[in-house]
Amino acid sequence: MAILSALGTEVFIPVAAAVGVAFAIAQWLLVARVKVNPAHAAAAASSGGSKNGGYGDYLIEEEEGLNDHNVVVKCHEIQTAISEGATSFLFTEYQYVGVFMSIFAVVIFLFLGSVEGFSTKSQPCTYSKDKYCKPALFNALFSTASFLLGAITSLVSGYLGMKIATFANARTTLEARKGVGKAFIIAFRSGAVMGFLLASSGLVVLYITINVFKLYYGDDWEGLFESITGYGLGGSSMALFGRVGGGIYTKAADVGADLVGKVERNIPEDDPRNPAVIADNVGDNVGDIAGMGSDLFGSYAESSCAALVVASISSFGINHDFTGMCYPLLVSSVGIIVCLITTLFATDFFEIKAVKEIEPALKKQLIISTALMTVGIAIISWLALPAKFTIFNFGAQKEVTNWGLFFCVAIGLWAGLIIGFVTEYYTSNAYSPVQDVADSCRTGAATNVIFGLALGYKSVIIPIFAIAVSIYVSFSIAAMYGIAVAALGMLSTIATGLAIDAYGPISDNAGGIAEMAGMSHRIRERTDALDAAGNTTAAIGKGFAIGSAALVSLALFGAFVSRAGVKVVDVLSPKVFIGLIVGAMLPYWFSAMTMKSVGSAALKMVEEVRRQFNSIPGLMEGTGKPDYATCVKISTDASIKEMIPPGALVMLTPLIVGTLFGVETLSGVLAGALVSGVQIAISASNTGGAWDNAKKYIEAGASEHARTLGPKGSDCHKAAVIGDTIGDPLKDTSGPSLNILIKLMAVESLVFAPFFATHGGLLFKWF
Amino acid sequence: MAILSALGTEVFIPVAAAVGVAFAIAQWLLVARVKVNPAHAAAAASSGGSKNGGYGDYLIEEEEGLNDHNVVVKCHEIQTAISEGATSFLFTEYQYVGVFMSIFAVVIFLFLGSVEGFSTKSQPCTYSKDKYCKPALFNALFSTASFLLGAITSLVSGYLGMKIATFANARTTLEARKGVGKAFIIAFRSGAVMGFLLASSGLVVLYITINVFKLYYGDDWEGLFESITGYGLGGSSMALFGRVGGGIYTKAADVGADLVGKVERNIPEDDPRNPAVIADNVGDNVGDIAGMGSDLFGSYAESSCAALVVASISSFGINHDFTGMCYPLLVSSVGIIVCLITTLFATDFFEIKAVKEIEPALKKQLIISTALMTVGIAIISWLALPAKFTIFNFGAQKEVTNWGLFFCVAIGLWAGLIIGFVTEYYTSNAYSPVQDVADSCRTGAATNVIFGLALGYKSVIIPIFAIAVSIYVSFSIAAMYGIAVAALGMLSTIATGLAIDAYGPISDNAGGIAEMAGMSHRIRERTDALDAAGNTTAAIGKGFAIGSAALVSLALFGAFVSRAGVKVVDVLSPKVFIGLIVGAMLPYWFSAMTMKSVGSAALKMVEEVRRQFNSIPGLMEGTGKPDYATCVKISTDASIKEMIPPGALVMLTPLIVGTLFGVETLSGVLAGALVSGVQIAISASNTGGAWDNAKKYIEAGASEHARTLGPKGSDCHKAAVIGDTIGDPLKDTSGPSLNILIKLMAVESLVFAPFFATHGGLLFKWF
Repeated sequence: MAILSALGTEVFIPVAAAVGVAFAIAQWLLVARVKVNPAHAAAAASSGGSKNGGYGDYLIEEEEGLNDHNVVVKCHEIQTAISEGATSFLFTEYQYVGVFMSIFAVVIFLFLGSVEGFSTKSQPCTYSKDKYCKPALFNALFSTASFLLGAITSLVSGYLGMKIATFANARTTLEARKGVGKAFIIAFRSGAVMGFLLASSGLVVLYITINVFKLYYGDDWEGLFESITGYGLGGSSMALFGRVGGGIYTKAADVGADLVGKVERNIPEDDPRNPAVIADNVGDNVGDIAGMGSDLFGSYAESSCAALVVASISSFGINHDFTGMCYPLLVSSVGIIVCLITTLFATDFFEIKAVKEIEPALKKQLIISTALMTVGIAIISWLALPAKFTIFNFGAQKEVTNWGLFFCVAIGLWAGLIIGFVTEYYTSNAYSPVQDVADSCRTGAATNVIFGLALGYKSVIIPIFAIAVSIYVSFSIAAMYGIAVAALGMLSTIATGLAIDAYGPISDNAGGIAEMAGMSHRIRERTDALDAAGNTTAAIGKGFAIGSAALVSLALFGAFVSRAGVKVVDVLSPKVFIGLIVGAMLPYWFSAMTMKSVGSAALKMVEEVRRQFNSIPGLMEGTGKPDYATCVKISTDASIKEMIPPGALVMLTPLIVGTLFGVETLSGVLAGALVSGVQIAISASNTGGAWDNAKKYIEAGASEHARTLGPKGSDCHKAAVIGDTIGDPLKDTSGPSLNILIKLMAVESLVFAPFFATHGGLLFKWF
Repeated sequence: MAILSALGTEVFIPVAAAVGVAFAIAQWLLVARVKVNPAHAAAAASSGGSKNGGYGDYLIEEEEGLNDHNVVVKCHEIQTAISEGATSFLFTEYQYVGVFMSIFAVVIFLFLGSVEGFSTKSQPCTYSKDKYCKPALFNALFSTASFLLGAITSLVSGYLGMKIATFANARTTLEARKGVGKAFIIAFRSGAVMGFLLASSGLVVLYITINVFKLYYGDDWEGLFESITGYGLGGSSMALFGRVGGGIYTKAADVGADLVGKVERNIPEDDPRNPAVIADNVGDNVGDIAGMGSDLFGSYAESSCAALVVASISSFGINHDFTGMCYPLLVSSVGIIVCLITTLFATDFFEIKAVKEIEPALKKQLIISTALMTVGIAIISWLALPAKFTIFNFGAQKEVTNWGLFFCVAIGLWAGLIIGFVTEYYTSNAYSPVQDVADSCRTGAATNVIFGLALGYKSVIIPIFAIAVSIYVSFSIAAMYGIAVAALGMLSTIATGLAIDAYGPISDNAGGIAEMAGMSHRIRERTDALDAAGNTTAAIGKGFAIGSAALVSLALFGAFVSRAGVKVVDVLSPKVFIGLIVGAMLPYWFSAMTMKSVGSAALKMVEEVRRQFNSIPGLMEGTGKPDYATCVKISTDASIKEMIPPGALVMLTPLIVGTLFGVETLSGVLAGALVSGVQIAISASNTGGAWDNAKKYIEAGASEHARTLGPKGSDCHKAAVIGDTIGDPLKDTSGPSLNILIKLMAVESLVFAPFFATHGGLLFKWF
């Protein structure tokens, strides 16, 4: 047996979660010291600088405009407007999603309840035929409950993230008056608040749910962990709507604002005269923050569920080894502690002294967390796992050692780092790929687009090999459980990943507020520097999200196949092959929908912005006030309306295919969507990131080469802006939504597997 | 037994091929009546019109400039320049490819010869273990021979096509003086010459090869048809280099010419002052004509080989039923007759009386040939097939009726028509999708690109369902043989398909010659009208090519799996899954290479064209003469250099994967590349086609809506030109090359299957 006792496990997990929450609150308090409330501003300004946080007063650049109270008042106003816009959008979104979730909960209950005809009698277990398990009706009930819990946790995660981000944006702007280092720390701390809250709450809710469900299920761990998978489905469904809705919102506003503001009217980004500017800044918070928070929470929940469900039918489950069973949760608990230490490296142990140190500081976070986590995994694998145990492998049991399993988690973790670095190489303007794209702007927008698309396609190669090697190695060691824990390994440093990810849009917003509040050029330059680093880290975050999604969905796919009783998924069977080719088509269908949605919504936004510029007197001169609310409403309405069809496509496909064509075709669809979706997702987000940074490269003019392409407003720059605009829906709407598509279809199939196994494939039965 | 005797078959196939060749010659003679030789021009001009071809003298538009001998002289000059450029490029290309092919032939011989250690002893047959088959060494020898034969036939096909097209282009221009109907018939007849020559020569060479090989093999049909698959590999390898090399050539010249000429210098397309104009027109002939000819010949050869190899291990082969065995060739023979009748509908039975009748006339060709062919297939299935027979199905034998097999061929044929119509819907500017894309140009190039990409993604849906249904139905009826004959059905009207396809670039060239020869605006309008219809038909042709490629490669894949002795290709096996995900990545890698190549070559071309405009005095004023040859050389050098890496990627992948990782992983790679490549290929060619026609829609200004977007030179039009330029490499280089990628990897795996089955998977054996 393992060194760590069941009681130790019962204590360690909630303690780690509590530490994470406490750390998040501590960071929040530090951020809150920056006052945006006009009443306190004077006092804060005089006390700011030397005492807070204890990192001396050697500022990178001189303090600027610290005593200008009007700026504080303005920042407060803008922050309030953004926060209100975001809150109102999320409430509208949640209403619609709430209705959908309620209906879907009923569907889950009815479908799963019907497996044994709503009987309340115990049934023979699926895997251990000699034992009796709880009735299917109660599995249906508990699955529905955990589905709703997952959805609510995901919803709360997104909402909290948005609240923190809109709390932090103006504070980052105000700190930027004191220097870029101060501003960086505020933005990063705020990201950390979100990261730790999400990682801890995801863990603790799952932990409590397991313990509560255990009161009913007792020794029937097969049923217990089957019901728990609903948690992953709930989290992911919410994430789908969050990502798609938020993605359409933010990009409709962004593209609309840019097309009229930057291109037609020649006014800077985030200019307060642009009527779409508030909608644009709201978008960052609902798309990049709330959407991404829900998304990564979903990945985390699903990889945990996939590992748990496989473990429940392995020796851990069969022998009722609670510590071994909870290994996935223990890995996440260790992850929280590791990330806590890692965060201190950015906020307390070192200090940002120059603009060029920002990106390395963020990269160091990834490396430190990965290195520390490797040690952490080794320790927990040694403590929590028996030296030898068996893992379920499509009917057979496979023997695994604790060091073997350590290796599975570690390979996932390090594959994530490789994907992160490759993404950085292809999207950061410090390297030749983005510089080549920038250079191709010399001959216009067309070559820029051709080079950008080629770059995205090329950037797929190494990540795919990294994923393939992880899959092969972890599967060889521990079958599908190996893949599930590899995914978990990639996500084990999620708190740091989220902190880095959230840092980007917060800095972006801070820049917007600085511009709108009319702060000086130098302050805007400081926030721009923060933002540029954020662009690359956002791409890295998306790389992690898609890499882990590939592993997670493969693990879920394996669990689904096991649960549905499919022995082989043979490509040579026409049932499977048509699934495979249609599945590979789904990401294209989905991308077509989301991109068209962004395009149409942006067109509406353009018309409204043009209308306001033409009809509101004095708007261009700065004397008239734009009608921000109408633009916010256009984005809200468009995204709510447009998120339904792609959402329905993803949610209904597994149900329809499973019910009509059966589990074999559904297996094909899942595999096809997975192998095709991964490629489009990676290439779309890297292409978009590269175009964005090629534009920033020309704008910044930091090198001799860059200056030959610029300055802002040159033909090259105009070509680069076109590329950037095309990349917007690719990198922030269709690309990142695709990883939800592949995960969600897999987890949904797993939840409905008992139904499909019993009643699926109607069409083939009829003919 | 079948009604048609073996002797009947032996007679019917060569007769059908001879009829095809005779028809092609007849069409050629009709085209040749238009004289471009200045000496004969005067005589021809006076006799032209009423007598030739017998379709009266009711011309659509008035005759124009018929007696201007200078024009004829100029046309002749330009035609000679284009023809010489194309010939010289093809010779250079063939030299490089020749070296590659020779090396590869040695590889084939060594790899296949090593299967039984170069032994000259007979061996037990693979499928009928109780019989003895010819030694592996001789299979290696004959495979190598048929590989070389396939490559040479493909090479000759491409070369002949180019010769015909460069023979016809100036003739079409000159006929355009007499009206659009006359010009249409010349262009279409020339396309028919190419279509019938290719279809007939492909058939007759294959037929002769089978009969010659039979002299050695005798009753060992297993070995005979295994060697014959080399023919498909040869055809396809040649096609790969033709498509990629030609594609890079044509688009480097096109993009380069447009970027400087249209965008910077504001001179019209095909203006003789543009130094890249000859290279651009040469490109149409080497890319769209020679490349496409080789490509479709490859598809045809491969689908025949796939069907033959499966048939050889089915009851046809086991019972030595020669007529049944030759069913694939009989279907193609009937296809030639059917296409012959169909062609008459375009050239003799009906007459083009107005511009708007061109596109319907071409569409009618597709419908008529499909309808007639359905009857043809029914007749030949009844005549050539026994009422009942058995087909090899992964180890078992499956019983099939002749009507069942008829249904397989017919479903492929009709699926092709559906794909054709869907392609037309998404790429013709007569329908809303392209009009929406044109409309999105109002807000600039960015929205144009977003809408265009979304259109391409969306256009994948129905073709994929059509392919999926064909696969399911034909597999259910007759296993992999069903899929192979479905592919053959889709390609059975290849003569008509090629005629329509070749018509496009011929018209395009005719327009170029008209512009360069300084002919009147009205003549240029007539050739433009021909060209616009050609754009849509080119997209339809690509739809057919990719649809058939999907079916062909699946059939080849099935044959490979059977030959390699793989029983199941289980997605749940990590060996297969990593193959699947890496295979799905290959089309992205390949596209990245080809797109980047076009981009880099175009940049070089742009620099050269700019240099000439800046350094040659009087070039813009028309007094200086541009240096066409340097531009031709740039395109030639770039395409030769750049075609090697993507070519090597495709050719080496199956060899490396099969040798190192074995047949299971290779199966995964083939399936992954197939399901992912189909999607990119369809979306790339439709996106490109849509952008091209959106631009033409704005330029033509035929509707109220179109006029609000135009005219030429407006902001909308500029945005549309950017989209068109981006689409060029997508639709003419990377997109159409992808279908060769998936077919070629499959046929190569099949040819090397005996080697992989014996010596493959070294890496897994070592570890």
